[in-house]
Amino acid sequence: MPGKASVAEQIALLEKGADRIEPRSELRRKVERSIASGAPLRVKVGFDPSAPDLHLGHTVVMRKMRHFQQLGHEVWFVIGDFTGMIGDPTGRSKTRPQLTPEQIRENAETYKAQVFRILDPDRTVVAFNSTWLSELGSAGLIRLASRYTVARMLERDDFRRRFRKEQAISIHEFLYPLAQAYDSVAMKADFELGGTDQLFNLLVGRHIMREYDLPPQAVLTMPLLMGLSGPDKMSKSLGNAVGVTDPPDQMFGRLMSISDDRMIHYATLLTDRAPGEIEALESGLADGSIHPKRAKQELAVSIVSDFHSPTEARAARDRFEAVFARGGVPEEMPTHRAESPVRLLDVLADSGLVRSRAEGRRLLRQGAVWFAGQRAPGDVTVPVPAEGAVLRAGKRRFLRVEREPPPP
Amino acid sequence: MPGKASVAEQIALLEKGADRIEPRSELRRKVERSIASGAPLRVKVGFDPSAPDLHLGHTVVMRKMRHFQQLGHEVWFVIGDFTGMIGDPTGRSKTRPQLTPEQIRENAETYKAQVFRILDPDRTVVAFNSTWLSELGSAGLIRLASRYTVARMLERDDFRRRFRKEQAISIHEFLYPLAQAYDSVAMKADFELGGTDQLFNLLVGRHIMREYDLPPQAVLTMPLLMGLSGPDKMSKSLGNAVGVTDPPDQMFGRLMSISDDRMIHYATLLTDRAPGEIEALESGLADGSIHPKRAKQELAVSIVSDFHSPTEARAARDRFEAVFARGGVPEEMPTHRAESPVRLLDVLADSGLVRSRAEGRRLLRQGAVWFAGQRAPGDVTVPVPAEGAVLRAGKRRFLRVEREPPPP
Repeated sequence: MPGKASVAEQIALLEKGADRIEPRSELRRKVERSIASGAPLRVKVGFDPSAPDLHLGHTVVMRKMRHFQQLGHEVWFVIGDFTGMIGDPTGRSKTRPQLTPEQIRENAETYKAQVFRILDPDRTVVAFNSTWLSELGSAGLIRLASRYTVARMLERDDFRRRFRKEQAISIHEFLYPLAQAYDSVAMKADFELGGTDQLFNLLVGRHIMREYDLPPQAVLTMPLLMGLSGPDKMSKSLGNAVGVTDPPDQMFGRLMSISDDRMIHYATLLTDRAPGEIEALESGLADGSIHPKRAKQELAVSIVSDFHSPTEARAARDRFEAVFARGGVPEEMPTHRAESPVRLLDVLADSGLVRSRAEGRRLLRQGAVWFAGQRAPGDVTVPVPAEGAVLRAGKRRFLRVEREPPPP
Repeated sequence: MPGKASVAEQIALLEKGADRIEPRSELRRKVERSIASGAPLRVKVGFDPSAPDLHLGHTVVMRKMRHFQQLGHEVWFVIGDFTGMIGDPTGRSKTRPQLTPEQIRENAETYKAQVFRILDPDRTVVAFNSTWLSELGSAGLIRLASRYTVARMLERDDFRRRFRKEQAISIHEFLYPLAQAYDSVAMKADFELGGTDQLFNLLVGRHIMREYDLPPQAVLTMPLLMGLSGPDKMSKSLGNAVGVTDPPDQMFGRLMSISDDRMIHYATLLTDRAPGEIEALESGLADGSIHPKRAKQELAVSIVSDFHSPTEARAARDRFEAVFARGGVPEEMPTHRAESPVRLLDVLADSGLVRSRAEGRRLLRQGAVWFAGQRAPGDVTVPVPAEGAVLRAGKRRFLRVEREPPPP
């Protein structure tokens, strides 16, 4: 398989969009060797099982993994269940809660369901790093720890900053980068992929492989994806994210909210368009020969298609268009039945139009809820007209509320 | 048992000669609690199994352990076989070679044979820390490492010095103090004893016990024993040591070579004399009312008695005296038979008068070998007189060489 594309073609595809390749020279060398031997490259990517909901930011690296797969290489999807089982023993970190084996299994299944929207299951190995890290034992872990120095570990940006500021660093925090580096040893990785912020950790993997007398992996980092708006990277907690499992309409609508600038960034990192096409888009937008809204629609259709079908993506676009054409009310919307009079907060929450009662309460407080053409003045209970009425939350969420006949 | 001596008596004996007790207040509290409950205190001391030959320097801490035993307390002799099995994985340290389980067992036996010259076997538990440290596993070791910070570990003198000088510190070096601290957790130590240079490590034990919700151990350090001469602590590699298994004559002779100053130091750390007796000795030596040589003989007899019997110790003293009386040649000495002419180097090595041919060669080169009253001019072969002759190596090693009849 790896023999089909030429060395130059492989390098061009793999380099596309990458932030850094370390060391640069090894990309060519590894690809050449793979073509010569007929053996696919083994590409590692690690995932933290404590937060199984992926957003588009995570897909940037996965898309690069898919490029490797398209060239016939083998992707190892390493789930960091070992550290997940330990959690943060100091209890200081919310991002590293201790998970039960049951939770880890569930999260892994959620993960897989999401990543296989992008990756080719036949060229993906899903591995749990507890397999080899538990087996290491305390003696093995000490041997591993002997292969890296305190000074080098303190060169990592966040450690250096905390050390200078005299903020506590627990010694086990030095062991996590080593443990994930050992993953590369155990699976004999040729490449490891990650976000730009992972560069240090990936290079530790390279160093540790050498210490275990293995040819060191090369490292490829991808830029971090910016959020829908604002200066931050995409993050669920900042509310600027699009979830991989979001329904087509929601995905499409949110993608249509980005600025023209961000469009180029998303086209680069969230599609397989060639660099030339991206440049054409950029200059077309600049000289006015391309209409931004149309370009944004095309981009959104392309992204939604990756996670749903092209048919669903186009349908989402058409519904979005129809809403605009008719002053903002879509033709089709879900229906919810309620007895009259009804508390709007109950409808919002029970119908799933909002994610939580808290969100419903917030929208009501902000005056972002309309019912039967009227803005709701707060958390109110109102009559449902005999013919039903449209409930709207925020800009794009609509619900038809029908009157439930009272119980006999 | 712990009830026999009063709190004040116990404290007086345990404080004697100690360098530091941390925290001071807990000595009294722990002793009181032991008397009240009738439960003996559990006293930990750790030993490195990579160098099983003990010298008098090691016995300073053991003597303190014996004091605990004399008061009815329980001594845990923890053999650090876990770290011994790992060795220094970087291969940089000569003092931490990797040992086989077989070597560790042998060294442990050697240890026991030596320590039971001082300790009461009935109140001594011999434990191997691999029992609990191997069981910890990689996850347990990470949890342990989470209980201590990088900054605190870097406060240890040697780490701080190396860090400042930008000398490499491997991360596993941070794990060893934690592993030995975990020994205290596993055995629920009330006290840990060690040399002054161990203070930091012992206090880590105290900290870690607290982290594992155990009442923290108190820590008692003993001063380091100076060598026979010079400004260094006693150390086999510096050649200023007296081995615990050295024969009585050798032990006695070497102890007689110390200076008057060191006599006070040795009397304090190598005998059970009360502080008043030591002061009396010191002032007696100062005002000339005590003869230094006689005092030194008494001290040497007392020390040799601890490792051999008082009878053997006195016999060694008498032989030493006789040598002096007769211009330096002892009355009794071992006999060795050799054909004439004989190469002196062969006699030295074959008879065991020197430890190795290398040492024999060195002594011959230095002109420190006499045969039949003549200084040997080097590595020579000489006739053996019909009546035999005395071979002398250095100051105190003598051998009677008799002529072997030639083979028939």
